[in-house]
Amino acid sequence: MKNFLFMPDSFKGTLTAAEICAILQQAAAKIFPDAVCRSIPVADGGEGSVDCFLQALPGERISCPCTGPLFDEITAYYALIDDGRTAVIEMAAAAGLPMVENRRNPLRATTFGVGQLIQDALERGVERIILGLGGSATTDGGCGAAAALGVRFLRQDGQSFVPTGGTLQEIAHIDVSSIDPHLSHCKVVTMCDIDNPMYGPRGAAYIFGPQKGADEAAVKRLDDNLQHLAAVIEKDLGLKVAEVPGSGAGGAMGAGTIAFFGARLQSGIDTVLEAVHFEELARQADVIFTGEGRLDSQSLQGKVVIGIARRARELRCPVIAVVGGVDDAGLEPAYDQGVSAVFSINRLPQDFAVSRHKSRDNLQATAENIFRLLKLQER
Amino acid sequence: MKNFLFMPDSFKGTLTAAEICAILQQAAAKIFPDAVCRSIPVADGGEGSVDCFLQALPGERISCPCTGPLFDEITAYYALIDDGRTAVIEMAAAAGLPMVENRRNPLRATTFGVGQLIQDALERGVERIILGLGGSATTDGGCGAAAALGVRFLRQDGQSFVPTGGTLQEIAHIDVSSIDPHLSHCKVVTMCDIDNPMYGPRGAAYIFGPQKGADEAAVKRLDDNLQHLAAVIEKDLGLKVAEVPGSGAGGAMGAGTIAFFGARLQSGIDTVLEAVHFEELARQADVIFTGEGRLDSQSLQGKVVIGIARRARELRCPVIAVVGGVDDAGLEPAYDQGVSAVFSINRLPQDFAVSRHKSRDNLQATAENIFRLLKLQER
Repeated sequence: MKNFLFMPDSFKGTLTAAEICAILQQAAAKIFPDAVCRSIPVADGGEGSVDCFLQALPGERISCPCTGPLFDEITAYYALIDDGRTAVIEMAAAAGLPMVENRRNPLRATTFGVGQLIQDALERGVERIILGLGGSATTDGGCGAAAALGVRFLRQDGQSFVPTGGTLQEIAHIDVSSIDPHLSHCKVVTMCDIDNPMYGPRGAAYIFGPQKGADEAAVKRLDDNLQHLAAVIEKDLGLKVAEVPGSGAGGAMGAGTIAFFGARLQSGIDTVLEAVHFEELARQADVIFTGEGRLDSQSLQGKVVIGIARRARELRCPVIAVVGGVDDAGLEPAYDQGVSAVFSINRLPQDFAVSRHKSRDNLQATAENIFRLLKLQER
Repeated sequence: MKNFLFMPDSFKGTLTAAEICAILQQAAAKIFPDAVCRSIPVADGGEGSVDCFLQALPGERISCPCTGPLFDEITAYYALIDDGRTAVIEMAAAAGLPMVENRRNPLRATTFGVGQLIQDALERGVERIILGLGGSATTDGGCGAAAALGVRFLRQDGQSFVPTGGTLQEIAHIDVSSIDPHLSHCKVVTMCDIDNPMYGPRGAAYIFGPQKGADEAAVKRLDDNLQHLAAVIEKDLGLKVAEVPGSGAGGAMGAGTIAFFGARLQSGIDTVLEAVHFEELARQADVIFTGEGRLDSQSLQGKVVIGIARRARELRCPVIAVVGGVDDAGLEPAYDQGVSAVFSINRLPQDFAVSRHKSRDNLQATAENIFRLLKLQER
């Protein structure tokens, strides 16, 4: 064992993917001092996704003045990777929930700044934009971003305006004829790891509105407004976007990126595998380590572990998953998809309320013991 | 990997050592169908110890009519191993707490039957007796067993009697001149995994009396009586036994076996390692699996894991420990003593009250994943 590839998801609520990589790398170095380790924390599109890509790949961090979620002036950043051919932008950077703190208001919040970041990248000549959805303060269906890029939203009286969640119902027509022409040469990939539709009981307003500060009445209004937006998109652009899984992500910006930018919605893991040229890395690796918070019957997670295992199996590279928790319902699919072995980090029989504070030590010890076991083969 | 040796302790309260062996063997067979597996459940001297030896080694189960803990007639059994040269006797077979159920009375209970089993084995010509203490209903200091083997306990008036916990204070003299002469050619090894002294706050009466049915007054009386017994042993036999670690085991039968049978007190793991000719087994094994309920700062356990690791290291055989729980305080000594890797069976962050009912599945899955990892080296 000489070459290890670390590609974990975060353990939600306890450890970021980057922290997990660091712990795995430290444990590997302790047992295999000569090992070559490559760390690729897997981004899910939410806050921290840009940093994940910059940690995984050579690239540049670009600062850019833009509009914040409540039309304030801010400076956000995104990443250029792939020798400047690809930009990685996370909507949380210009429309993030932590940025509004106690001023949360999804009726008024905008993704305009996200559009400005996209425009900045387009002007630098990128051929591809990876846009991470997640952690947003908005429910504007991505209209703000579209407006920043030249899409005109017109009221009944013909006046154009920048719609927010609370004014989407005022849109009578959508005119995409003046959209930034760079977009026609640039592929937009929208990263999101949820499958919620645009509106309805599982939609952006009902599921994510409350955490963005919407009360019951506001949720209802946002949901109605998103439904109206979907209808206008269908009428003027000929696209049915409301039911696309993930269209509700990022305050329904998922839907907007499809409608306005021709984006493809894709899971974090597929996006990362593509961006890092996974095949090459896997061919060099003796073992790939991945991991997730949970692989069990209670969770819909496991996408990262399964996504990696499936591709690694084709390349005949073994995959070890280190997880916060796993049960039989999580194990069998993992084996089936090519995971060689799964280890849970729980060292003592303790409830999550207790063990969550020990995640770092538990992961460190579990990883070390896995490397110790791998070391046995060198005898 | 072709040859696996399984030597686990029990996981107290959840799985017996034999059950753990069976689960490990099943998991091994699933991943390494051609593997040679050898299972040696480690006995601790308590109930089930005879069966552990019979599972580990070729031997014969001997039935023997004898006296039960309350002087009733019973049939108990013990094992002959080593081509009939060694007997394995557990005191629980003739003086066990489960045998008295709701008639628990340590003032009246006797180890007389244990002495009869010893005598039966002596008459068959054994050269060595492994006597397991633990799980007893008695607090007679082993005087009952000694009486069965010819030791005479005399009252002040010169009358001999068979003392029990409640009558030890009547012993004025001890006369060992008529003890079974076979004993002089037979080595007695007393197995016990506790280090309690004969009497006092950590002694047999105070620590184990209550679970045998002694109320506060009875505990006090038993403790006084054991102290008296120790004084008579010192006076008549010239031996100070009360402070020997483990002399309080088996209702202070630990002390009695030293005083009357010249026994050596030894931990379960050391006794088993000796009996199974561990060196030969370890030389054949590619990996040894051991395990315990806990390897942590809260417990004084770990004897089996550490005991095996220490010996295996000398023989350069790797040791993998599978445990119910472990923390840093348990890990470091394990590594230091030669354990290659430690894995905890907890697959989800759950309290012991929940996880204890999943021990079987958790162990099965954890073991399987360890074998899956070992299998990687065959690529």
